[in-house]
Amino acid sequence: MAADLVLYSYWRSSASYRVRIALNLKGLHYRTQAVHLVRDGGEQHGAAYAALNPQQLVPTLVDGERVLTQSMAIVEYLDETHPQPPLLPSDAPGRARVRELAQIVGCDIHPLGNLRVLQWLGNPFEAGDEQKGNWMRHWMAIGFQALEAMLASSPHTGHYCHGDTPSLADICLVPQVYNARRWKLPLGDYPTLLRIDAMCAAHAAFHAAAPEQQPDAQKAA
Amino acid sequence: MAADLVLYSYWRSSASYRVRIALNLKGLHYRTQAVHLVRDGGEQHGAAYAALNPQQLVPTLVDGERVLTQSMAIVEYLDETHPQPPLLPSDAPGRARVRELAQIVGCDIHPLGNLRVLQWLGNPFEAGDEQKGNWMRHWMAIGFQALEAMLASSPHTGHYCHGDTPSLADICLVPQVYNARRWKLPLGDYPTLLRIDAMCAAHAAFHAAAPEQQPDAQKAA
Repeated sequence: MAADLVLYSYWRSSASYRVRIALNLKGLHYRTQAVHLVRDGGEQHGAAYAALNPQQLVPTLVDGERVLTQSMAIVEYLDETHPQPPLLPSDAPGRARVRELAQIVGCDIHPLGNLRVLQWLGNPFEAGDEQKGNWMRHWMAIGFQALEAMLASSPHTGHYCHGDTPSLADICLVPQVYNARRWKLPLGDYPTLLRIDAMCAAHAAFHAAAPEQQPDAQKAA
Repeated sequence: MAADLVLYSYWRSSASYRVRIALNLKGLHYRTQAVHLVRDGGEQHGAAYAALNPQQLVPTLVDGERVLTQSMAIVEYLDETHPQPPLLPSDAPGRARVRELAQIVGCDIHPLGNLRVLQWLGNPFEAGDEQKGNWMRHWMAIGFQALEAMLASSPHTGHYCHGDTPSLADICLVPQVYNARRWKLPLGDYPTLLRIDAMCAAHAAFHAAAPEQQPDAQKAA
């Protein structure tokens, strides 16, 4: 089955990055099909891709005949179909905590910084680069403040967000920290996030999933 | 355990509405602790609530000593701790589909229409009511177009989003349709969404969770 995995991905897409990490953690081989989000008005809006993913967003994972979208749902699917190593804890409160941490990123930070949102801020809202940057940093900062408070205060936080093995929470956190650096958010107030991000950066599965390691990465972006 | 359930909720919050539906579907008794999102600058920003929920968002579910946030994570927690009736299918591809549909609402529609986002559009972006309405309708429309295409084309769609029993997908869809009506989004292009919404409206668990049925509902809003 693994030979049939195709990931429609864009190198710098946070949501694609999440799925790449999960695939790597599971040791699954997959083929990357690059979808360029900007060129020619966005390849994600082309008829062929829109038929595959009606939201016209990346990523899409094709597993044989199955077409899967929404990155957090894809990670849970991979965890259920390839249980080792687990990406969610074995207890219900632990799973709730990991999903909560993941959803703070996946629902309340990342969607507000999506490319299509920035495009709307430019037109019709006429926001310039400085205003767009302020918008991005605002939502990342208040999300990171909550994450830092929750991670720093919990006895369940370990080397990673939950215990000493990577989970769905780390899979969502790392691409958001990457994005925060790209947008020059000062990170000094988030020592726990930085500690976990550094732990992940040293892990081969996370490293291989990084934007710069992708076949469609652009040198000067 | 059920006697100890306390839901910090705001009557018109979509995310609170989701958890109320899930609690009702499970037949769980709970006490509502109203958090007024506007009065006095927003009760969610008060020190007591912020200590409970560092994101300063609703809902929060307190289950004995456990404090749970993020509505989709809470619904999964309730489904795991009270398995009957199930709110997710028993097969991995089915669960992936239900989570995908839920996350289209929970990640890509709802967060863009959150109160705090509308407040930012007003200041510093100086958007007026018409621009705010256009923003709301834009993200709802493109999300609903994708949902309609996916639901109308799938053999897995039944009386509800997935088969003939309510799931996490319906729990997320119904509050978003409520919100769409509030913001006067034309709904004629979404016959499948309307059919499922009508099915849910006739279900006692959904009806009792509606904003107007809540103890903190305001008559003239």
